[in-house]
This record gives sequence, structure tokens and C-alpha cells, in this order.
Amino acid sequence: MSFEWKKNLKRLTPYVPGEQPGAENIIKLNTNENPYPPSLGVLSAIEHFDTDSYRKYPDPEASVLTGAIARTYSVDADQVFVGVGSDDVLGMSFLTFFNGGDPVLFPDITYSFYEVWGGLYGIPFEKKSLRDDFTIDREDYTGTNGGIVIANPNAPTSISMQLYDIEYIVKNNPSSVVIIDEAYIDFGGETALPLVDRYDNVLVVRTFSKSRSMAGARIGFAVGCKELIGALCTTKFSYNSYTIDSLTIQIGAAVLADDVYFEVIRKKIIETRDWTSEKLKGMGFDVLPSDTNFLFVTKPGINAKAVFEALKKRDIYVRYFDKPRVSDYLRITIGTDEEMKKVIKVLEEIV
Amino acid sequence: MSFEWKKNLKRLTPYVPGEQPGAENIIKLNTNENPYPPSLGVLSAIEHFDTDSYRKYPDPEASVLTGAIARTYSVDADQVFVGVGSDDVLGMSFLTFFNGGDPVLFPDITYSFYEVWGGLYGIPFEKKSLRDDFTIDREDYTGTNGGIVIANPNAPTSISMQLYDIEYIVKNNPSSVVIIDEAYIDFGGETALPLVDRYDNVLVVRTFSKSRSMAGARIGFAVGCKELIGALCTTKFSYNSYTIDSLTIQIGAAVLADDVYFEVIRKKIIETRDWTSEKLKGMGFDVLPSDTNFLFVTKPGINAKAVFEALKKRDIYVRYFDKPRVSDYLRITIGTDEEMKKVIKVLEEIV
Repeated sequence: MSFEWKKNLKRLTPYVPGEQPGAENIIKLNTNENPYPPSLGVLSAIEHFDTDSYRKYPDPEASVLTGAIARTYSVDADQVFVGVGSDDVLGMSFLTFFNGGDPVLFPDITYSFYEVWGGLYGIPFEKKSLRDDFTIDREDYTGTNGGIVIANPNAPTSISMQLYDIEYIVKNNPSSVVIIDEAYIDFGGETALPLVDRYDNVLVVRTFSKSRSMAGARIGFAVGCKELIGALCTTKFSYNSYTIDSLTIQIGAAVLADDVYFEVIRKKIIETRDWTSEKLKGMGFDVLPSDTNFLFVTKPGINAKAVFEALKKRDIYVRYFDKPRVSDYLRITIGTDEEMKKVIKVLEEIV
Repeated sequence: MSFEWKKNLKRLTPYVPGEQPGAENIIKLNTNENPYPPSLGVLSAIEHFDTDSYRKYPDPEASVLTGAIARTYSVDADQVFVGVGSDDVLGMSFLTFFNGGDPVLFPDITYSFYEVWGGLYGIPFEKKSLRDDFTIDREDYTGTNGGIVIANPNAPTSISMQLYDIEYIVKNNPSSVVIIDEAYIDFGGETALPLVDRYDNVLVVRTFSKSRSMAGARIGFAVGCKELIGALCTTKFSYNSYTIDSLTIQIGAAVLADDVYFEVIRKKIIETRDWTSEKLKGMGFDVLPSDTNFLFVTKPGINAKAVFEALKKRDIYVRYFDKPRVSDYLRITIGTDEEMKKVIKVLEEIV
């Protein structure tokens, strides 16, 4: 075997997700999952699902799900695009909207998949340095560009931007699509959804993976003006006619209907986050102001990588990024109260 | 709203799937779905699924599913790649393997998504004319190229190629990846799977949508040498870390375990196909020799488009392609015996 075909092979550096350890006794705080189970609506949707219907293709428009999202966020159904998690939605958005020669702009410290999609599709990009306090300077996003992506709140920093700063960027870039990745918005910060009806160039991307406890179901969506959504649909129908399976369409809609439970777990996580943050500050940690379901923390004099390894040995998985500017930090997902008490206790022993 | 962002927009012509009418009383023979429900393994997998586990991301490797596919087809797990239907697998394969400057080759009459993916990724392609009898001439696939895609059996022609002709193409193109799209192989023809261990450049793509009655669940897979599969995984991890949801992983594995039911419905469809074919021939139709779950038929003197419309008025949906060389043909999916008797009866009235 000569592997001569490798001459035509795409060369890529993939994104590396956090580990998914199989063992049961692990406190898993490394992928920003929700510690609480999803809405009981999931069970109900599964019970009502006609498994015989699997023999047919799903609705290519996933109308039941896009309709439920539209109702939940008070937009029209043709302003909603759904995908296989927000990664699918974001990846497809890069492919659809970033075809100019000018670089796409995003912060130097942000969701590292942005540069991976740039590499995947050969899209030039330029990383703009966050300020020293890890906030975003809106003036960095006013020059010539082929598109803009802002995670708000940002990850792994956990810091959110004011809506008027987001609007400033959107307003000053009429010839670029500005993607606001709101994966964590339900835990804090101001959503850019109100901009969608006033600007034709803003796309808000959301996920069911964090606040809806549905990481395993793979549902993400985008909201924008109908022309942006139409363009995304054209790309989708040029890639895969049916991306969301029949059962997931029903499950997604059922989960959205349960807004009471959603509010309960969302607020609980915020409460646990604020408790954990205070505890860590009391221990001498610098804790960035978090509007997310995780904390980004450091402590003068400690080796973050060593703490990461020590926690792992105690079956506590957090995330460490061996990258410039953030290599002294740990990203700790907010779990249950019990889990966070254990984390604090173990950290007190380690540091 | 000025839509200035459209200057950076990708221009695409999407694939148009067959209609998915909502009404219940329709005889739906337009998207090559299986008329029989999926294995009861689906129900069992759903009943055993822990819905609380949705809060966590799925296994990014979908190991339970790739393992089940590997066992079923007697290959190693690292020779299997899974995706959201075979469209996801094929689209990702185009992006991964077709990066040379030379055109990718496929027949002029074949699955029309191939040219759509070419357009999506800016991959040059060249369509090779089928012979007058709609068979593929292997000599058309020996010139300079950047990759080759052969649907075997081909769609919408329903005709399969001999394995030694497939092997001839694979052997004569060591520096190209040759994709064999076997969406319909369970209904006839010889699989290219035995070539996978002997050639490093052949990728066999399959789907759960046809013979496994699982179009609604979105599962497709590729089998190849581990280097080809590794390259596909790199692309996948550069696009979306988790494409198959937690429940679908379990359902897919459960369906594969039920080989008895699989054999029963597979053979039943072949039997119904052959009965329908004989009936149509008796009515004066030319029926191409089918190794699939559909028939591609024409009749001298009739207007295929008019017959398509007349059938639709009688709630029978078949597929008509308004394209060169095939505009006199209808593609009729094989349904149940009862459905096909009805089709024959209505056709006798119409033509």
C-alpha cells in the first residue's frame, strides 16, 4: 500500500474536545455540561414517538423544532436554522458567509474551533488580542474584514460584553456577517436577539447543550433575518438534506416547552457558580467575572497544569489549555452543589 | 436593510430531495424508503436508554456503533467511519480526499448530490457519459483525475457493475481515492468490501436509510483502510466533534444486531421488485435490470412527466427527473405488495 492518494488529502489540525471518561465515579467539570438531567419532556417525546416512522426520511425543514424555537424566542420560523449542535451551525455559517478575501476577525482567546473552521474551509482569519483583563475591545472590530465572530459570553474567559458594544460592532460592519455565539447566554449577559430584526447582518447562534442539558442530543440553532437563514438553508441542502433525525426533532420541541424546569436549573447553576466563585476568591484565587456555567480561575504562585493533573488523580476533571496567555488558568464547569463542595475541599488540600 | 454582506456569500445550487408529503393516505414511492418498519431492536434500545445521559456529550467516536458495524462487516473498528446519513459521510469524503487540481470523475447519470458537493467545495469534476444502455464503461475512469465516485448499484438507473470492473478502476487509480457508494447494495450486486483490505484507495459508503428502514435516524458509514478512515476522522473533528447523538448510537447498534429481520425484509423487497418488474414488462414498459429497491422504467410513446403527474393526482408519488437522457423515465420505489398492486392497477388505467 503506497498511499499515493495522500497527495490530494486535506491537511487539517482538528479541534480537541475535553475528555469523555467512561468511569462513573468521576466529577466531570471539563466540557461545560449541565449537572442536571434534561426536562422530563424528553421522556414524554420518546414515549409518543412512532418508531415505525424511522423508515421514512425526517422532515428536511425540521419544522416542528424550528417552529418551537421560533415561538420560544418570538421570531418567525423562517428566521430559525437548526443543526447538529451549534458546531454544525457555526461550521456551516463559516462556509456560507465568509467567502471574501479579507480576514475573518475573532479574539485571540475564544472558542478554539473558530480557527479550525477557518483552516477547514481555507478562510483567512485574524485574531484580535483581548485586553489584559480579558475583555474585548470593540474598536478592534471596525477595520476591513470578511466577517466577525464573537462568543458572548466568551469562552474560556466566561466574561460577557455589553449589548451596546455588540451593537456597535454589528452597526459598523454592514458588509460583514457578525456571528454572536451565545452558547452560554442563559447563564448571564445580554442576548443579541433584539438586534436580529434591526440588522440584516447579525446571526445569533445558540445550543441545547448547556442550559438545556441536551449535549447528547446534538441540537444547535441560529436566529437571524430570513435572508441569512435562507442562505444557511441553501448550504445545508447542498451538504445533507436531512441533518436532524425524526426523534430528535420531537425531543427538541418537547424540551423547549418545559420553561419552568429550564428556569429552575438555570438559576440553580447561577447560584452554585456564585457560591463557588466566592469560595475560590476566599482561597486567594483570581476568578474572572463569570456570566457562564464555568469559572476561569488562576492563583498567583500555583502551577495550573500541576493542579489540573492533581485534580484528575482525585477523579475531578477540569479543563486546562496549554496556550499563550491562559496557561496559568483552569476552566472549571459548575456542577451540583455537592460536586462543587468536593472541588473546593480537594483544592484546599492541593494548593 | 442593504444586504451588503451578500458580497461574501457562497453561491450554491442545492440538491433537491423528493417530496415528503404529510398526508397519511399517500403511496410514497419517491425517495427509495423501505416500506417495512425498522427492527424491533429500535424499541428495545429506546427503552434501555438513560435519558438523563443526554446532559453529557455523546462519545465523539460513537464506538458502540462503529464497533457494531465492524463486527457486522468483519472489519476492524478503525476501518469504520460513521456520519449523519451517507450524505454526511460522502460530503465529508469529498472535502477530505478531493483536493487535487484534476477533476473528480463520476457518471453523467448518477446520484445528483455528487455535483452539488463539487460545487459546495469548489472541487472540479467531469461527468462521464453512461453507455446507451445506461451501464458504466470502466475505461472512462482510467484517465487523469482527482478522485472517482461510483454509485453501485447506480441511481437512478438501478443497474450494478461487476466487482471485477470496480476492482479494475480501483487498481488503475492508485493515486486517487475511489468512493463506491453502496446505498442500495443489499438489494443486489456485489459489494466492494472485499477490496478494502487489498487496496488503500477504496472507500465503501453505506447507509441505514434503505435496507435497514432507518432513513429517519440518519446513519451512514464508510469502510476503508485505517488511513482513509483516520483522514475522515480528522475532517470530522475539524467540523463537529459530536455528530451522532447518544441515543442514535445505541439504536444503530441494536438494529444491526437483528440480522434475521434484516434478511426477511431485504428478500421480501427483492421478491416484490421482481414481481413488479415482470408486471410492468407485461404492460410494455422497458424496465432497466434492477439491483436496487426501485425500478427505472420507460414506455415508448408515453410522456413520463404526464404519467408522474397523473399518479400524483391518484396519491401515488414516484420520482421524475427533468434532465437530459432520463426525462422519459420514472423512478418507482418498491413498496409493499399491496402498494405495488395498486400502482400496477392505476398505471393500467393511465397508460
